[in-house]
Amino acid sequence: MSASTDYAKLAIEQVIAEWQKQNKRVDDMLAKFSAEQFNSEIAPGKNTGTYLLGHLIAVNDNITTFLGFERSYAHYDDMFVKNPDKSGFAFPSLDELKTAWNKVNETLAKHFSSLSTEDWFTKHTAVSQSDFEANPQRNKLNIIINRTNHQSYHVGQMVLLG
Amino acid sequence: MSASTDYAKLAIEQVIAEWQKQNKRVDDMLAKFSAEQFNSEIAPGKNTGTYLLGHLIAVNDNITTFLGFERSYAHYDDMFVKNPDKSGFAFPSLDELKTAWNKVNETLAKHFSSLSTEDWFTKHTAVSQSDFEANPQRNKLNIIINRTNHQSYHVGQMVLLG
Repeated sequence: MSASTDYAKLAIEQVIAEWQKQNKRVDDMLAKFSAEQFNSEIAPGKNTGTYLLGHLIAVNDNITTFLGFERSYAHYDDMFVKNPDKSGFAFPSLDELKTAWNKVNETLAKHFSSLSTEDWFTKHTAVSQSDFEANPQRNKLNIIINRTNHQSYHVGQMVLLG
Repeated sequence: MSASTDYAKLAIEQVIAEWQKQNKRVDDMLAKFSAEQFNSEIAPGKNTGTYLLGHLIAVNDNITTFLGFERSYAHYDDMFVKNPDKSGFAFPSLDELKTAWNKVNETLAKHFSSLSTEDWFTKHTAVSQSDFEANPQRNKLNIIINRTNHQSYHVGQMVLLG
Protein backbone atom coordinates (compact mmCIF):
# COMPACT_ATOMS: atom_id res chain seq x y z
CA MET A 1 0.00 0.00 0.00
CA SER A 2 1.33 3.42 -0.95
CA ALA A 3 1.70 6.39 1.40
CA SER A 4 -1.13 8.03 -0.51
CA THR A 5 -3.59 5.21 0.17
CA ASP A 6 -2.46 5.37 3.77
CA TYR A 7 -3.39 9.05 3.84
CA ALA A 8 -6.90 8.35 2.54
CA LYS A 9 -7.28 5.52 5.07
CA LEU A 10 -6.00 7.78 7.85
CA ALA A 11 -8.46 10.53 6.89
CA ILE A 12 -11.34 8.01 7.08
CA GLU A 13 -10.13 6.79 10.48
CA GLN A 14 -10.02 10.39 11.72
CA VAL A 15 -13.57 11.07 10.53
CA ILE A 16 -14.75 7.92 12.32
CA ALA A 17 -12.77 8.81 15.46
CA GLU A 18 -14.57 12.17 15.63
CA TRP A 19 -17.88 10.37 15.12
CA GLN A 20 -17.09 8.07 18.04
CA LYS A 21 -16.07 11.03 20.17
CA GLN A 22 -19.40 12.74 19.57
CA ASN A 23 -21.24 9.50 20.33
CA LYS A 24 -19.43 9.31 23.62
CA ARG A 25 -20.79 12.73 24.54
CA VAL A 26 -24.32 11.39 24.11
CA ASP A 27 -23.37 8.24 26.06
CA ASP A 28 -22.16 10.49 28.88
CA MET A 29 -25.43 12.44 28.93
CA LEU A 30 -27.42 9.19 28.95
CA ALA A 31 -25.42 8.11 31.99
CA LYS A 32 -25.80 11.46 33.74
CA PHE A 33 -29.22 12.96 33.02
CA SER A 34 -32.49 11.66 34.49
CA ALA A 35 -35.64 10.90 32.49
CA GLU A 36 -37.07 14.08 33.99
CA GLN A 37 -34.12 16.08 32.64
CA PHE A 38 -34.54 14.52 29.19
CA ASN A 39 -38.23 15.40 29.25
CA SER A 40 -37.38 19.06 29.92
CA GLU A 41 -36.99 21.70 27.23
CA ILE A 42 -33.42 22.75 26.38
CA ALA A 43 -34.68 26.38 26.61
CA PRO A 44 -38.16 27.80 27.19
CA GLY A 45 -40.45 26.81 24.32
CA LYS A 46 -37.73 24.83 22.49
CA ASN A 47 -37.26 21.08 21.91
CA THR A 48 -37.11 18.58 24.76
CA GLY A 49 -34.05 16.43 25.34
CA THR A 50 -36.16 13.34 24.64
CA TYR A 51 -37.15 14.66 21.22
CA LEU A 52 -33.53 15.49 20.37
CA LEU A 53 -32.35 12.05 21.52
CA GLY A 54 -34.99 10.35 19.37
CA HIS A 55 -34.08 12.68 16.50
CA LEU A 56 -30.41 11.67 16.70
CA ILE A 57 -31.36 7.98 16.84
CA ALA A 58 -33.57 8.29 13.74
CA VAL A 59 -31.10 10.39 11.74
CA ASN A 60 -28.14 8.20 12.67
CA ASP A 61 -30.08 5.01 11.96
CA ASN A 62 -30.76 6.38 8.49
CA ILE A 63 -27.00 6.54 7.84
CA THR A 64 -27.25 2.77 7.29
CA THR A 65 -29.54 3.48 4.30
CA PHE A 66 -27.08 5.99 2.84
CA LEU A 67 -24.32 3.37 3.12
CA GLY A 68 -26.48 0.78 1.34
CA PHE A 69 -27.68 -1.32 4.29
CA GLU A 70 -31.06 -1.93 5.98
CA ARG A 71 -32.12 0.42 8.74
CA SER A 72 -33.94 -0.59 11.95
CA TYR A 73 -35.73 2.51 13.28
CA ALA A 74 -37.57 3.91 10.25
CA HIS A 75 -40.68 3.96 12.49
CA TYR A 76 -39.00 6.75 14.53
CA ASP A 77 -39.07 9.15 11.57
CA ASP A 78 -42.68 10.27 12.04
CA MET A 79 -42.12 11.08 15.72
CA PHE A 80 -38.62 12.50 15.59
CA VAL A 81 -37.85 13.76 12.08
CA LYS A 82 -40.95 14.45 9.99
CA ASN A 83 -42.85 16.17 12.80
CA PRO A 84 -41.71 18.70 15.39
CA ASP A 85 -41.65 18.04 19.12
CA LYS A 86 -44.98 18.23 20.95
CA SER A 87 -46.97 16.88 17.99
CA GLY A 88 -48.89 14.54 20.28
CA PHE A 89 -46.82 11.36 19.85
CA ALA A 90 -46.30 9.10 22.88
CA PHE A 91 -42.52 8.86 22.91
CA PRO A 92 -40.72 5.61 23.81
CA SER A 93 -39.36 5.49 27.38
CA LEU A 94 -35.82 6.64 28.10
CA ASP A 95 -34.82 2.99 28.55
CA GLU A 96 -36.19 2.10 25.13
CA LEU A 97 -34.39 5.08 23.59
CA LYS A 98 -31.13 4.06 25.28
CA THR A 99 -31.47 0.55 23.84
CA ALA A 100 -32.17 2.00 20.39
CA TRP A 101 -29.24 4.43 20.66
CA ASN A 102 -26.84 1.61 21.53
CA LYS A 103 -28.20 -0.69 18.85
CA VAL A 104 -27.85 1.96 16.13
CA ASN A 105 -24.26 2.65 17.15
CA GLU A 106 -23.33 -1.03 17.22
CA THR A 107 -24.86 -1.56 13.79
CA LEU A 108 -23.09 1.46 12.34
CA ALA A 109 -19.74 0.39 13.82
CA LYS A 110 -20.14 -2.99 12.15
CA HIS A 111 -20.96 -1.41 8.78
CA PHE A 112 -18.14 1.14 9.06
CA SER A 113 -15.58 -1.61 9.58
CA SER A 114 -16.95 -3.54 6.57
CA LEU A 115 -16.16 -0.71 4.13
CA SER A 116 -12.82 -0.48 2.33
CA THR A 117 -11.02 2.82 1.69
CA GLU A 118 -12.35 2.78 -1.86
CA ASP A 119 -15.91 2.00 -0.68
CA TRP A 120 -16.00 5.18 1.40
CA PHE A 121 -15.46 7.23 -1.75
CA THR A 122 -18.26 5.56 -3.71
CA LYS A 123 -21.60 7.34 -4.02
CA HIS A 124 -24.08 7.24 -1.17
CA THR A 125 -27.50 5.77 -1.98
CA ALA A 126 -29.46 9.05 -2.07
CA VAL A 127 -27.57 10.63 -4.97
CA SER A 128 -27.93 9.71 -8.65
CA GLN A 129 -24.96 8.45 -10.64
CA SER A 130 -24.91 11.59 -12.76
CA ASP A 131 -25.10 13.94 -9.76
CA PHE A 132 -22.30 11.96 -8.12
CA GLU A 133 -20.14 12.25 -11.21
CA ALA A 134 -20.73 16.01 -11.18
CA ASN A 135 -19.80 16.18 -7.48
CA PRO A 136 -17.65 13.29 -6.20
CA GLN A 137 -17.89 14.74 -2.67
CA ARG A 138 -21.36 13.16 -2.47
CA ASN A 139 -19.84 9.90 -1.26
CA LYS A 140 -20.33 7.72 1.81
CA LEU A 141 -17.58 9.46 3.77
CA ASN A 142 -19.41 12.76 3.43
CA ILE A 143 -22.46 11.33 5.18
CA ILE A 144 -20.36 10.66 8.27
CA ILE A 145 -18.65 14.08 8.18
CA ASN A 146 -22.04 15.74 7.88
CA ARG A 147 -23.92 13.61 10.43
CA THR A 148 -21.16 14.05 13.00
CA ASN A 149 -21.63 17.81 12.77
CA HIS A 150 -25.41 17.37 12.90
CA GLN A 151 -24.93 15.46 16.12
CA SER A 152 -22.52 18.05 17.58
CA TYR A 153 -25.13 20.73 16.86
CA HIS A 154 -27.76 18.90 18.90
CA VAL A 155 -25.31 17.82 21.61
CA GLY A 156 -24.58 21.53 22.12
CA GLN A 157 -28.30 21.92 22.82
CA MET A 158 -28.74 18.81 24.96
CA VAL A 159 -25.98 19.84 27.38
CA LEU A 160 -28.26 22.73 28.37
CA LEU A 161 -30.40 20.14 30.20
CA GLY A 162 -27.61 19.80 32.77
CA MET B 1 -1.33 11.51 -9.46
CA SER B 2 -2.73 8.15 -8.41
CA ALA B 3 -6.38 7.47 -7.54
CA SER B 4 -5.23 7.01 -3.94
CA THR B 5 -3.74 10.49 -3.68
CA ASP B 6 -6.93 11.75 -5.24
CA TYR B 7 -8.89 10.08 -2.45
CA ALA B 8 -6.80 11.77 0.25
CA LYS B 9 -7.16 15.10 -1.55
CA LEU B 10 -10.91 14.57 -1.89
CA ALA B 11 -11.24 13.75 1.83
CA ILE B 12 -9.43 17.01 2.69
CA GLU B 13 -11.70 18.97 0.35
CA GLN B 14 -14.75 17.42 2.01
CA VAL B 15 -13.51 18.33 5.48
CA ILE B 16 -12.95 21.92 4.31
CA ALA B 17 -16.36 22.01 2.58
CA GLU B 18 -18.06 21.05 5.87
CA TRP B 19 -16.01 23.74 7.63
CA GLN B 20 -17.21 26.32 5.11
CA LYS B 21 -20.79 25.12 5.51
CA GLN B 22 -20.64 25.63 9.28
CA ASN B 23 -19.07 29.06 8.79
CA LYS B 24 -21.97 29.98 6.55
CA ARG B 25 -24.38 29.19 9.37
CA VAL B 26 -22.61 31.77 11.54
CA ASP B 27 -22.59 34.23 8.61
CA ASP B 28 -26.36 33.75 8.33
CA MET B 29 -26.89 34.43 12.04
CA LEU B 30 -24.69 37.53 11.81
CA ALA B 31 -26.91 38.77 8.99
CA LYS B 32 -30.14 37.92 10.81
CA PHE B 33 -29.75 38.53 14.55
CA SER B 34 -29.61 41.99 16.14
CA ALA B 35 -26.98 43.11 18.67
CA GLU B 36 -29.73 42.81 21.28
CA GLN B 37 -30.30 39.18 20.32
CA PHE B 38 -26.57 38.45 20.46
CA ASN B 39 -26.43 40.02 23.92
CA SER B 40 -29.19 37.68 25.13
CA GLU B 41 -28.59 34.35 26.84
CA ILE B 42 -29.16 31.24 24.73
CA ALA B 43 -31.15 29.86 27.71
CA PRO B 44 -31.78 31.30 31.19
CA GLY B 45 -28.48 31.59 33.07
CA LYS B 46 -26.41 30.23 30.15
CA ASN B 47 -23.91 31.92 27.80
CA THR B 48 -24.82 34.95 25.71
CA GLY B 49 -24.64 34.85 21.94
CA THR B 50 -21.95 37.54 22.04
CA TYR B 51 -19.75 35.39 24.28
CA LEU B 52 -20.21 32.37 22.00
CA LEU B 53 -19.42 34.43 18.90
CA GLY B 54 -16.23 35.78 20.52
CA HIS B 55 -15.41 32.24 21.66
CA LEU B 56 -15.68 30.90 18.10
CA ILE B 57 -13.53 33.76 16.78
CA ALA B 58 -10.80 33.09 19.38
CA VAL B 59 -10.84 29.30 18.95
CA ASN B 60 -10.91 29.48 15.16
CA ASP B 61 -8.19 32.14 15.11
CA ASN B 62 -6.03 29.75 17.12
CA ILE B 63 -6.29 27.17 14.31
CA THR B 64 -3.68 29.30 12.54
CA THR B 65 -1.25 28.48 15.38
CA PHE B 66 -1.95 24.75 15.09
CA LEU B 67 -1.21 24.96 11.36
CA GLY B 68 2.07 26.75 12.02
CA PHE B 69 1.12 30.34 11.23
CA GLU B 70 0.74 33.57 13.22
CA ARG B 71 -2.61 34.27 14.85
CA SER B 72 -4.28 37.70 15.09
CA TYR B 73 -6.76 37.56 17.98
CA ALA B 74 -4.79 36.07 20.87
CA HIS B 75 -6.03 39.02 22.93
CA TYR B 76 -9.56 37.53 22.70
CA ASP B 77 -8.53 34.45 24.72
CA ASP B 78 -8.87 36.07 28.15
CA MET B 79 -12.37 37.30 27.41
CA PHE B 80 -13.73 34.40 25.41
CA VAL B 81 -11.75 31.23 26.21
CA LYS B 82 -9.88 31.39 29.51
CA ASN B 83 -12.77 32.98 31.41
CA PRO B 84 -16.49 32.25 31.39
CA ASP B 85 -19.13 34.68 30.20
CA LYS B 86 -20.08 37.47 32.61
CA SER B 87 -16.58 37.77 34.06
CA GLY B 88 -16.74 41.56 33.82
CA PHE B 89 -14.98 42.11 30.49
CA ALA B 90 -16.23 44.87 28.19
CA PHE B 91 -16.85 42.90 25.00
CA PRO B 92 -16.08 44.36 21.56
CA SER B 93 -19.13 45.66 19.67
CA LEU B 94 -21.02 43.35 17.33
CA ASP B 95 -19.52 45.26 14.37
CA GLU B 96 -16.00 44.67 15.69
CA LEU B 97 -16.78 40.99 16.22
CA LYS B 98 -18.15 40.72 12.68
CA THR B 99 -14.97 42.24 11.30
CA ALA B 100 -12.86 39.82 13.37
CA TRP B 101 -15.00 36.85 12.32
CA ASN B 102 -14.58 37.70 8.66
CA LYS B 103 -10.86 38.37 8.98
CA VAL B 104 -10.22 35.05 10.75
CA ASN B 105 -12.10 33.17 8.04
CA GLU B 106 -10.27 34.94 5.23
CA THR B 107 -6.91 34.21 6.86
CA LEU B 108 -7.78 30.56 7.42
CA ALA B 109 -9.02 30.14 3.84
CA LYS B 110 -5.67 31.50 2.61
CA HIS B 111 -3.70 29.12 4.83
CA PHE B 112 -5.87 26.13 3.93
CA SER B 113 -5.23 26.65 0.24
CA SER B 114 -1.47 26.92 0.88
CA LEU B 115 -1.24 23.39 2.32
CA SER B 116 -0.54 20.37 0.11
CA THR B 117 -2.24 17.00 0.64
CA GLU B 118 0.89 15.78 2.42
CA ASP B 119 1.06 18.93 4.62
CA TRP B 120 -2.40 18.19 6.03
CA PHE B 121 -1.12 14.88 7.39
CA THR B 122 1.91 16.39 9.11
CA LYS B 123 1.78 17.00 12.85
CA HIS B 124 0.03 20.06 14.21
CA THR B 125 2.13 22.42 16.30
CA ALA B 126 0.73 21.49 19.73
CA VAL B 127 1.82 17.85 19.67
CA SER B 128 5.36 16.56 20.20
CA GLN B 129 7.12 14.55 17.50
CA SER B 130 7.04 11.42 19.67
CA ASP B 131 3.34 11.76 20.50
CA PHE B 132 2.61 12.32 16.82
CA GLU B 133 4.53 9.20 15.88
CA ALA B 134 2.51 7.25 18.45
CA ASN B 135 -0.72 8.68 17.03
CA PRO B 136 -0.54 9.96 13.44
CA GLN B 137 -4.15 11.17 13.71
CA ARG B 138 -2.79 14.20 15.56
CA ASN B 139 -2.21 16.00 12.30
CA LYS B 140 -3.35 19.32 10.85
CA LEU B 141 -6.42 17.81 9.21
CA ASN B 142 -7.67 16.65 12.59
CA ILE B 143 -7.70 20.21 13.89
CA ILE B 144 -10.20 21.16 11.18
CA ILE B 145 -12.37 18.06 11.74
CA ASN B 146 -12.43 18.80 15.45
CA ARG B 147 -12.94 22.56 15.26
CA THR B 148 -15.77 22.17 12.75
CA ASN B 149 -17.62 20.01 15.28
CA HIS B 150 -16.76 22.48 18.03
CA GLN B 151 -18.38 25.18 15.94
CA SER B 152 -21.45 23.05 15.15
CA TYR B 153 -21.90 22.49 18.88
CA HIS B 154 -22.04 26.22 19.57
CA VAL B 155 -24.06 27.01 16.43
CA GLY B 156 -26.70 24.63 17.81
CA GLN B 157 -26.79 26.87 20.87
CA MET B 158 -26.68 30.21 19.07
CA VAL B 159 -29.71 29.37 16.91
CA LEU B 160 -31.71 29.44 20.16
CA LEU B 161 -31.31 33.24 20.07
CA GLY B 162 -33.72 33.32 17.09
